[in-house]
Amino acid sequence: MIETEISRAITAEYNRKLTEHLENDVVIVGAGPAGLTAGYYLSKAGYKTALLERKLSTGGGIWGGAAGYNVVVTQDKDIPDEFGMTSKKHKGLYIFDSIEFAAALAFKAKKAGLEIFNLTEAEDVIIKTDSIEGVVVNHSTITIAKLHVDPFCISAKYVIDATGHPAEVVKMLLKRKPKLFPKGIQESFMDVVTAEAGVVDKTGEIFPGLYVAGMSVCAVFGLPRMGPIFGGMLKSGKKVAGQIDGKLRSSNS
Amino acid sequence: MIETEISRAITAEYNRKLTEHLENDVVIVGAGPAGLTAGYYLSKAGYKTALLERKLSTGGGIWGGAAGYNVVVTQDKDIPDEFGMTSKKHKGLYIFDSIEFAAALAFKAKKAGLEIFNLTEAEDVIIKTDSIEGVVVNHSTITIAKLHVDPFCISAKYVIDATGHPAEVVKMLLKRKPKLFPKGIQESFMDVVTAEAGVVDKTGEIFPGLYVAGMSVCAVFGLPRMGPIFGGMLKSGKKVAGQIDGKLRSSNS
Amino acid sequence: MIETEISRAITAEYNRKLTEHLENDVVIVGAGPAGLTAGYYLSKAGYKTALLERKLSTGGGIWGGAAGYNVVVTQDKDIPDEFGMTSKKHKGLYIFDSIEFAAALAFKAKKAGLEIFNLTEAEDVIIKTDSIEGVVVNHSTITIAKLHVDPFCISAKYVIDATGHPAEVVKMLLKRKPKLFPKGIQESFMDVVTAEAGVVDKTGEIFPGLYVAGMSVCAVFGLPRMGPIFGGMLKSGKKVAGQIDGKLRSSNS
Amino acid sequence: MIETEISRAITAEYNRKLTEHLENDVVIVGAGPAGLTAGYYLSKAGYKTALLERKLSTGGGIWGGAAGYNVVVTQDKDIPDEFGMTSKKHKGLYIFDSIEFAAALAFKAKKAGLEIFNLTEAEDVIIKTDSIEGVVVNHSTITIAKLHVDPFCISAKYVIDATGHPAEVVKMLLKRKPKLFPKGIQESFMDVVTAEAGVVDKTGEIFPGLYVAGMSVCAVFGLPRMGPIFGGMLKSGKKVAGQIDGKLRSSNS
Amino acid sequence: MIETEISRAITAEYNRKLTEHLENDVVIVGAGPAGLTAGYYLSKAGYKTALLERKLSTGGGIWGGAAGYNVVVTQDKDIPDEFGMTSKKHKGLYIFDSIEFAAALAFKAKKAGLEIFNLTEAEDVIIKTDSIEGVVVNHSTITIAKLHVDPFCISAKYVIDATGHPAEVVKMLLKRKPKLFPKGIQESFMDVVTAEAGVVDKTGEIFPGLYVAGMSVCAVFGLPRMGPIFGGMLKSGKKVAGQIDGKLRSSNS
Amino acid sequence: MIETEISRAITAEYNRKLTEHLENDVVIVGAGPAGLTAGYYLSKAGYKTALLERKLSTGGGIWGGAAGYNVVVTQDKDIPDEFGMTSKKHKGLYIFDSIEFAAALAFKAKKAGLEIFNLTEAEDVIIKTDSIEGVVVNHSTITIAKLHVDPFCISAKYVIDATGHPAEVVKMLLKRKPKLFPKGIQESFMDVVTAEAGVVDKTGEIFPGLYVAGMSVCAVFGLPRMGPIFGGMLKSGKKVAGQIDGKLRSSNS
Amino acid sequence: MIETEISRAITAEYNRKLTEHLENDVVIVGAGPAGLTAGYYLSKAGYKTALLERKLSTGGGIWGGAAGYNVVVTQDKDIPDEFGMTSKKHKGLYIFDSIEFAAALAFKAKKAGLEIFNLTEAEDVIIKTDSIEGVVVNHSTITIAKLHVDPFCISAKYVIDATGHPAEVVKMLLKRKPKLFPKGIQESFMDVVTAEAGVVDKTGEIFPGLYVAGMSVCAVFGLPRMGPIFGGMLKSGKKVAGQIDGKLRSSNS
Amino acid sequence: MIETEISRAITAEYNRKLTEHLENDVVIVGAGPAGLTAGYYLSKAGYKTALLERKLSTGGGIWGGAAGYNVVVTQDKDIPDEFGMTSKKHKGLYIFDSIEFAAALAFKAKKAGLEIFNLTEAEDVIIKTDSIEGVVVNHSTITIAKLHVDPFCISAKYVIDATGHPAEVVKMLLKRKPKLFPKGIQESFMDVVTAEAGVVDKTGEIFPGLYVAGMSVCAVFGLPRMGPIFGGMLKSGKKVAGQIDGKLRSSNS
Repeated sequence: MIETEISRAITAEYNRKLTEHLENDVVIVGAGPAGLTAGYYLSKAGYKTALLERKLSTGGGIWGGAAGYNVVVTQDKDIPDEFGMTSKKHKGLYIFDSIEFAAALAFKAKKAGLEIFNLTEAEDVIIKTDSIEGVVVNHSTITIAKLHVDPFCISAKYVIDATGHPAEVVKMLLKRKPKLFPKGIQESFMDVVTAEAGVVDKTGEIFPGLYVAGMSVCAVFGLPRMGPIFGGMLKSGKKVAGQIDGKLRSSNS
Repeated sequence: MIETEISRAITAEYNRKLTEHLENDVVIVGAGPAGLTAGYYLSKAGYKTALLERKLSTGGGIWGGAAGYNVVVTQDKDIPDEFGMTSKKHKGLYIFDSIEFAAALAFKAKKAGLEIFNLTEAEDVIIKTDSIEGVVVNHSTITIAKLHVDPFCISAKYVIDATGHPAEVVKMLLKRKPKLFPKGIQESFMDVVTAEAGVVDKTGEIFPGLYVAGMSVCAVFGLPRMGPIFGGMLKSGKKVAGQIDGKLRSSNS
Repeated sequence: MIETEISRAITAEYNRKLTEHLENDVVIVGAGPAGLTAGYYLSKAGYKTALLERKLSTGGGIWGGAAGYNVVVTQDKDIPDEFGMTSKKHKGLYIFDSIEFAAALAFKAKKAGLEIFNLTEAEDVIIKTDSIEGVVVNHSTITIAKLHVDPFCISAKYVIDATGHPAEVVKMLLKRKPKLFPKGIQESFMDVVTAEAGVVDKTGEIFPGLYVAGMSVCAVFGLPRMGPIFGGMLKSGKKVAGQIDGKLRSSNS
Repeated sequence: MIETEISRAITAEYNRKLTEHLENDVVIVGAGPAGLTAGYYLSKAGYKTALLERKLSTGGGIWGGAAGYNVVVTQDKDIPDEFGMTSKKHKGLYIFDSIEFAAALAFKAKKAGLEIFNLTEAEDVIIKTDSIEGVVVNHSTITIAKLHVDPFCISAKYVIDATGHPAEVVKMLLKRKPKLFPKGIQESFMDVVTAEAGVVDKTGEIFPGLYVAGMSVCAVFGLPRMGPIFGGMLKSGKKVAGQIDGKLRSSNS
Repeated sequence: MIETEISRAITAEYNRKLTEHLENDVVIVGAGPAGLTAGYYLSKAGYKTALLERKLSTGGGIWGGAAGYNVVVTQDKDIPDEFGMTSKKHKGLYIFDSIEFAAALAFKAKKAGLEIFNLTEAEDVIIKTDSIEGVVVNHSTITIAKLHVDPFCISAKYVIDATGHPAEVVKMLLKRKPKLFPKGIQESFMDVVTAEAGVVDKTGEIFPGLYVAGMSVCAVFGLPRMGPIFGGMLKSGKKVAGQIDGKLRSSNS
Repeated sequence: MIETEISRAITAEYNRKLTEHLENDVVIVGAGPAGLTAGYYLSKAGYKTALLERKLSTGGGIWGGAAGYNVVVTQDKDIPDEFGMTSKKHKGLYIFDSIEFAAALAFKAKKAGLEIFNLTEAEDVIIKTDSIEGVVVNHSTITIAKLHVDPFCISAKYVIDATGHPAEVVKMLLKRKPKLFPKGIQESFMDVVTAEAGVVDKTGEIFPGLYVAGMSVCAVFGLPRMGPIFGGMLKSGKKVAGQIDGKLRSSNS
Repeated sequence: MIETEISRAITAEYNRKLTEHLENDVVIVGAGPAGLTAGYYLSKAGYKTALLERKLSTGGGIWGGAAGYNVVVTQDKDIPDEFGMTSKKHKGLYIFDSIEFAAALAFKAKKAGLEIFNLTEAEDVIIKTDSIEGVVVNHSTITIAKLHVDPFCISAKYVIDATGHPAEVVKMLLKRKPKLFPKGIQESFMDVVTAEAGVVDKTGEIFPGLYVAGMSVCAVFGLPRMGPIFGGMLKSGKKVAGQIDGKLRSSNS
Repeated sequence: MIETEISRAITAEYNRKLTEHLENDVVIVGAGPAGLTAGYYLSKAGYKTALLERKLSTGGGIWGGAAGYNVVVTQDKDIPDEFGMTSKKHKGLYIFDSIEFAAALAFKAKKAGLEIFNLTEAEDVIIKTDSIEGVVVNHSTITIAKLHVDPFCISAKYVIDATGHPAEVVKMLLKRKPKLFPKGIQESFMDVVTAEAGVVDKTGEIFPGLYVAGMSVCAVFGLPRMGPIFGGMLKSGKKVAGQIDGKLRSSNS
């Protein structure tokens, strides 16, 4: 029966993807602009990379633009150009349709080979001897249904917290190692110029094996928040990919 | 202050899009596979087309594949190839990553010029003398917040109900003109082969100015339902674009 | 890392079970007393049988006994004896601890080889030429999360509706074929004696390929409802297993 | 079509208002009695003033009077007279219909030129070099719908926290600068006489660019709470308008 | 203690209003544009009129304009001028700030002497011998709290259903006297021109003692719906006031 | 340990009450004014009577008086006098504190020997040969928790539906025997005089073994509804007790 | 019309009660066993006493006995005898039907003259110069409906916190005067003997004008909790009445 | 009538079980793998043991395997063999069907004589002189329904906290005796090897009379968490049974 054949094709392919990514070079948590950009560059560089996203759709906070006005802004357009996004110039800013922006990120990241697991969330990290070795995951529908069901585990040489404002992976560390973050985790008042520069500047490793990219950088370092301007997110995603690429190259050589 | 400049850029661009699309050649309701495909071909053909989508993200039921196994299937790959989707062959079927599939549809439709209004829903149609002349719309956040706030209106020469299983635009007709659909609106039992053929075959105009495409075709004509197989959706979307193209050409000539 | 090895062992085993049961001799919907008993006898007879249960745990309405007093009752003890349940005699009735009763059914059915898919629900049936050929399924957490995600399909030579009072599989038929059940589907007033006899007597095939067992028999035939007395449920489950066994034997011979 | 013409008139006018008020002399947060009174006097004095209100309707806690008995009280009637409200005398108190009271404030403030953005909430403030420069805003329906959507920004020379008991704008400061409010923010026990005098007395600037008026004064300074007596609210609103008027005059001269 | 003196002033005044309006010339249900306008003209003419409104604030659907763009439209400005509303002309339409529009209606109706009971809902009508003699009311907070508490009653010579789209008072009739409305109660497709004229034309008595005004006219007579255009609402409210004035004059003379 | 001794005393006493009332002369459903009055007179006459009440507290709609004004009214005071209630005279009416009224009914009914099972609801009736023989009951907390747990049964020679407006026991009949109530079940418009007389007049047996008393009489016979006037309820409760007393006497003699 | 006459009788009587009790000798918060007993003895002694209860019904935690087994226990029966409650002896304990127990307390307290305001809650206390002078109250339906509506005030020479486990009135003090309760407010582990003695022993004034009685005594003094044994509650209620009686006598003499 | 006879059989049997277990040798809280294993061994050794479980079904987190893949894993199979569970070997691990695993634990524990009270929760412990003497319990449906109803008490010589991650019984101690757990209660990062060994090693008495077993051991001692691997749970349950057996033997001798 063709209906079961279709089911077989789908479950087999999903099982292949899941099994293949029980072990990874890099696991990215969060499919917003920073996560997808990092995933694009890491996959393009040939690393086995899995991106976990709690929701059905990728794109995070991009889709709604500002307050539902579906337009987003950047100050540069190098990375948008690489993703094939249509831009308009407006007094030193570049403006984009937010739906095209979100779709382009996912489309190009997938074409570069990134494996994205949607409806899947990181609920903890694996640390045995003071270095992150993987992520504890569950399907987010289990969480939504408030069921008492155990998670499973996937390994990673490096983990990127690209969960945005809440910096969720960092908070898993913070819960058991509060001394690592004596001032807590919180963004400062909005200031686009400082934030756009700072988020890229501070992107990097904050604990052995754990990198932050995008808005979680602002949360961890107390940098200002910004609004619907996404250039820093893309640059942070590209930078973290480069940093991990360097680490993996040196460890492989 | 750059923050207000960004806000100005965004609200001005959104206002331009909204104002421009108060009048349209075609309004499509629903950003699932049929709606996005129709929007792609109509925009490519140069028609002023607006697509209304209630949710933040486009893609409808594609993202989750089957039961959350994020893979979808088609029987042909001509349209997927046009959208640049990566396919694998599996015993006469083509399989796709559901995330890439959803992203490709939105990305290419946007590049073709389609204007998509997300967080926007059709709450009624405009009929003055027995032909649809437009759509009554509201922001879906108003509805979610259960606020008592009036809608606004956008005009269209043709409206496509691409809302899937619920056939929401058709139901607005049904509510006041139940005799048009004496058997009601409901899909039949699952049968992929019959459904894939029938959904394309029956795509078309069901009331002056109102076309159905995708799963709403099955609902209106009592055709079988299908599962995570999307070839018929794409073909139905392409077909309805062609039908309306023919109408608009003849009325313009 | 042992954590990923454990994850690999689990996902591989689940995938094996799921793949194996995309095609079945029998699919039972509902893991209450009738469904588990039917599953026990069918598996013991060597048929490839899958049981779908929406909840995490099996046992249906058994666990709570009557109004939370965790005791259940039967009038005979032949089948309970086969399942190894401890009984006490009370004036012509046999009484059991409801927790032991529920656990025994699941334990023995599993030992007999029944494959049970919990957190999995039937959302429709597959009918192509007026005979049920399979079931359309989804993970129930998708439904709880109110996500728009397509189902998948599993085939079956025979389907048993053991969903109890709501007769859910029968209602999927009723929705499109209301003439099959001109009086609708509803149990009558409580009457233990009539119900215990009737539920066994009327157990059987009600549409090509679809059998009813347990309380869904009462709903379909308008028999009286009963309370926390489970003998008829077990007998109905055993009877339907015998009926299908007969059909499968004759079609195989 | 007249329907789209109406839509065009509305969206164009709203866009004009929104664009005009991306930059402001004063932004008031909260359309209760203090906020509306401040807005009335500032607008009358010719300042470009925007008032943000989360709900659909203005008036805050006025409408329900006391426990739903729709009557409110003041000790003086100078400001009520200016707003055209009907009063009755009762043993040294003036009593008003709460609905008329709420409507009069909004009506006269609008006639004076105040721009009110309802369904719009302040979610943060903009501080770059230790002085408030504007407000981060979003549509409150986005928040109600729990959507992940970025805000936009509007600038202001001065911001007034007229959010009442919760002192919401002050709390945005408090979150990152807890040392500014070493005792926290909380009103004291009810005491009408002390509160009515104190709320006016303490109205003023509490951080460069940020003024408090109305009940948020009580919260910030630990003054007593009061009940359905609104004279102090009106006087506080008038006083803060005068204070900012003085500042703006001196900076303009 | 001044606190109890304030409480005494408020509860005494509310009790006076409530007691006075246990008997009325006219009871209006719903404080939207039609109800407030009717209330204004009836009170101005000297009739003892009570308006019941379920919510805290009056104004119904006016506040949010269209989809939250807080602007409303009329085709004439005679009644708005009488209410002192600020209008702008736009191609044959008059546009108003929705907040000023809502506030003006309530303010002027109150000044004219209308008694408004907010947080109060009509849950039934009193009919003894085929003519409406009053309204059964309860506080809407009782309903929201889902408490089982009896209502009380107020009498009226005439009742106006100004509840808008749902035509709630008419539905109380419909429930027990379905033959009065053989086609049911439902508006037709949007058509501003037809609706604006029809809603005024059909305003009137539909059952002895029961008048409809505003959108409930459209619901009862199956007229088209309209959007954020409010001229017809105001005219309908004025017309119904005139009709009842005529009746009361003739019965008094 | 005294704590377990207390637990033993409580559970033993409850078990005694429950066991004793598995068989009854009369079961009353609903502890409002009619049910408690009926229970008082039946218990006083020496019949074994159980009253089932879904909520924790008895008293039904009495506690809140009218719209939360905690006062109730009767036209006579004979029965209130028997219950020891304090009354005041007001123009031909007697007024009572609603709390005293509710407490007196429960207190005196208990003193007369009525057994009340609170948190217990009737979910069905037992009918074997066209006469009610008992009630199917469950603890209402099971229902609130939405658990799938079977009920238990208690027998009764006569059952009284004293569930008020919803006439819940009658509706269990109606569901399976709609022809018994061709016009459905619904009260008419409010009319105190007609209702007070009618509710007493029509109190009686409506199906072999099933009596209606109180507001369920109005629902079944389409009589007018009334408000916070409770004289008819008390008289109806007394009358139904007398009717059943007559039946039981004649069957016992 | 009799319906409005009934409404007039009810609202007038309620207004009389409310007005009369804007000033009180004693205000009791909470209508559980301690509050009702205190109210009974204070009213019997002739003091003007108001009892505020958030719910519709009085009785607090009595109705459900233990875990829904509707039986309660005391060690003495002097006070129960005074209230006319039926007791049974069980090994040194007295057992009561919980429904009769709850009803008797309310009935006798009302007969003694206590004024009970149900659906009314204390939301704060009035303290001007370090002594409680009254209570800030609101209707609890306002709170349930989450409406922003101001409270009103009633005065009292003495206030009794009889709110049970949460000690709600004490917590209003604690919020602004945490130093009064350096160890916080929390009961200790269950121990019936110690608790029954301690709750009576510690009943008394804990702040000028504020008394605690019943379980709030345990919370304030960290005494053990107890279960469904109510003798201490009754004695505590009687004791606090005596203490305040002493104070009022001395201040009056 | 057989229906009441069945009800009598059930309530009598439940009352017997409840009464018998008001006093116990051991009370176990939580019917997950550790609790059921401990209950099995203690019952087999002849101790009077009651297990309290809040939910309807036993098995805790076992049913769902990992993320809904219904398979669980152990490293040894001695205890599974004793329970009759079917295992498969996979690279040094044993894998089991999670449904069979859950059912086997409950079935064998019941056969060994364990009394399980489902829908029953521990809400506190009884401590009089610094040693646990029993447990305060309530039916969990009371809690779900948010009713204010007192609990009852059962005694125990020893109590086992087998509530898993939340360590609920320990937290009752922690609330009043925070100094016992100066570092709080929280598991560490996942590490299967360390956790599996540690959970068994640390199983034991942590306060006079209170033992921890299973995941609550990890929470109390800050051991790593683990995933769907259950060998340590079973061993911990067996160990705690042995420890208490030793204590009870020595105290009995």
